[in-house]
Amino acid sequence: MVILGAFTMDKNEILKQVSDMWSKVPFNNLLGIYITKFDHQETEIRFDWQDKLVGNHVQKILHGGVTASALDFAGGVVAAANIIENIDTLDITKLTQSLNKLGTIDLRTDYLRPGRGEQFIITAKIIRSGSKVAVARMEMHNEKGEHLAFGTGTYMVG
Amino acid sequence: MVILGAFTMDKNEILKQVSDMWSKVPFNNLLGIYITKFDHQETEIRFDWQDKLVGNHVQKILHGGVTASALDFAGGVVAAANIIENIDTLDITKLTQSLNKLGTIDLRTDYLRPGRGEQFIITAKIIRSGSKVAVARMEMHNEKGEHLAFGTGTYMVG
Amino acid sequence: MVILGAFTMDKNEILKQVSDMWSKVPFNNLLGIYITKFDHQETEIRFDWQDKLVGNHVQKILHGGVTASALDFAGGVVAAANIIENIDTLDITKLTQSLNKLGTIDLRTDYLRPGRGEQFIITAKIIRSGSKVAVARMEMHNEKGEHLAFGTGTYMVG
Amino acid sequence: MVILGAFTMDKNEILKQVSDMWSKVPFNNLLGIYITKFDHQETEIRFDWQDKLVGNHVQKILHGGVTASALDFAGGVVAAANIIENIDTLDITKLTQSLNKLGTIDLRTDYLRPGRGEQFIITAKIIRSGSKVAVARMEMHNEKGEHLAFGTGTYMVG
Repeated sequence: MVILGAFTMDKNEILKQVSDMWSKVPFNNLLGIYITKFDHQETEIRFDWQDKLVGNHVQKILHGGVTASALDFAGGVVAAANIIENIDTLDITKLTQSLNKLGTIDLRTDYLRPGRGEQFIITAKIIRSGSKVAVARMEMHNEKGEHLAFGTGTYMVG
Repeated sequence: MVILGAFTMDKNEILKQVSDMWSKVPFNNLLGIYITKFDHQETEIRFDWQDKLVGNHVQKILHGGVTASALDFAGGVVAAANIIENIDTLDITKLTQSLNKLGTIDLRTDYLRPGRGEQFIITAKIIRSGSKVAVARMEMHNEKGEHLAFGTGTYMVG
Repeated sequence: MVILGAFTMDKNEILKQVSDMWSKVPFNNLLGIYITKFDHQETEIRFDWQDKLVGNHVQKILHGGVTASALDFAGGVVAAANIIENIDTLDITKLTQSLNKLGTIDLRTDYLRPGRGEQFIITAKIIRSGSKVAVARMEMHNEKGEHLAFGTGTYMVG
Repeated sequence: MVILGAFTMDKNEILKQVSDMWSKVPFNNLLGIYITKFDHQETEIRFDWQDKLVGNHVQKILHGGVTASALDFAGGVVAAANIIENIDTLDITKLTQSLNKLGTIDLRTDYLRPGRGEQFIITAKIIRSGSKVAVARMEMHNEKGEHLAFGTGTYMVG
């Protein structure tokens, strides 16, 4: 993990490095997901339509699992942004430990409309924060602004 | 859809065709998911470890979205098996319409242990059945029998 | 059910009668819940603090079940408002049948803060509507505007 | 809290006192809920039909909120049994602190059949345990063994 070697970084630098690292995670890379806003108040991720993400040949719509994956990741990103925001000292070792502990406890996905579009935009906000557990709400829209899915995720953060 | 051309098929033949069709769905194919038991009482699907499914480099564990995808699909399969089981006449056109309407309304995933293993086995059972909505419970284990995740999905079936 | 005897009522009259009827439902009555806004776009219900609703002596906070009950009911109310809104003719018999079929399929409650306050206000909106299933999102605040809980409910509506 | 004054108690004595205390919690008392098995591997609670728990006059079935309340409480009881089981020393002050911190983070209720019966039996098991968060699964049956509801709850335990 690149971040480990750094001893003096401000929060923006940390956010950038974590963001780069996460886009390279194999499954995020496979889905083509990238972080477009990494902030503790609201984060945003995006991915583009790819034929390999299809779950229904006939109707040409996203697999429900793609939607769940994107919602889960968006919630994790905003939870991470909150860990970084709330950390008292910029102790990189401690931060790395916290980010490695970050994990989804449970996730609810509500599918509102068929997953059609050219680009998918997922936003996430923290609705419950704490030193151990954070809860996030996520929304997924397509490039036309159609609301495709809602998500609620509970994350271990400490 | 291959199934449309067939006018006389027994239920086993239908199950086989639907099973083949679904393994070819692009995103299932990408995950390497295949159906190993397709029955209205319990269905089972499996997939093998692949490096591209990783969600955490350092810990080498599955992306939470892969788990959610597999649970969602397993629940959809058992819901489909129930549609096929309960259909009064083997009217292929009607069946095809029903299967095309099949969709996830909501999905809850509970992550119990980190997603480690060589093979992942997901079983699904119907806990609420109806002509319009079915609810399924899913479990994911690895090849050692370790229980990795629980799922609950609500599906539109009619 | 009073509503059955009426043959000519406009939608507002129907909403009023259903609202009265539901406030008299024994368990709603026990909790002291009443409908303050009954509209297909957003509904609102309220209840006041009562010592018998306590779930934790020491901390003097609402039982989690009270919160879940209120969220479930609020979602049901907005689902009913949508049934009434979308009904093509004001066929009271048909409407009554629809309202009797109305039932919760599943409900997720997210507890954000301890249930403290003098009055509790729950709002509900439909996020997925359909002829068979509707999904609603609910929020509970206290009289100070503190956000206490979120809910998501899936309802059978036809 | 009675438990505070006691300095030397074995686990069974603690379980008994906590059980007594919780049956007296106002809202549990209102519902008539009592603990019939208080064990870290499986706990069981029960309550009897009462007309005031009705959610639907016409069909004479339990309010969905009553079911959610019972499931939530059952999950909390098994989470508490695990806190008591895992506590290293029988330090009553520490235990009391832990039990006071116990709270529901989120709860999913799946309604399987209308809530009819003379007695309702709810069992709960831990599916994910940890020092900070525990996840429990709950089932509700009536006295005829009909399965009425499933629940999944995530609890703060430390």
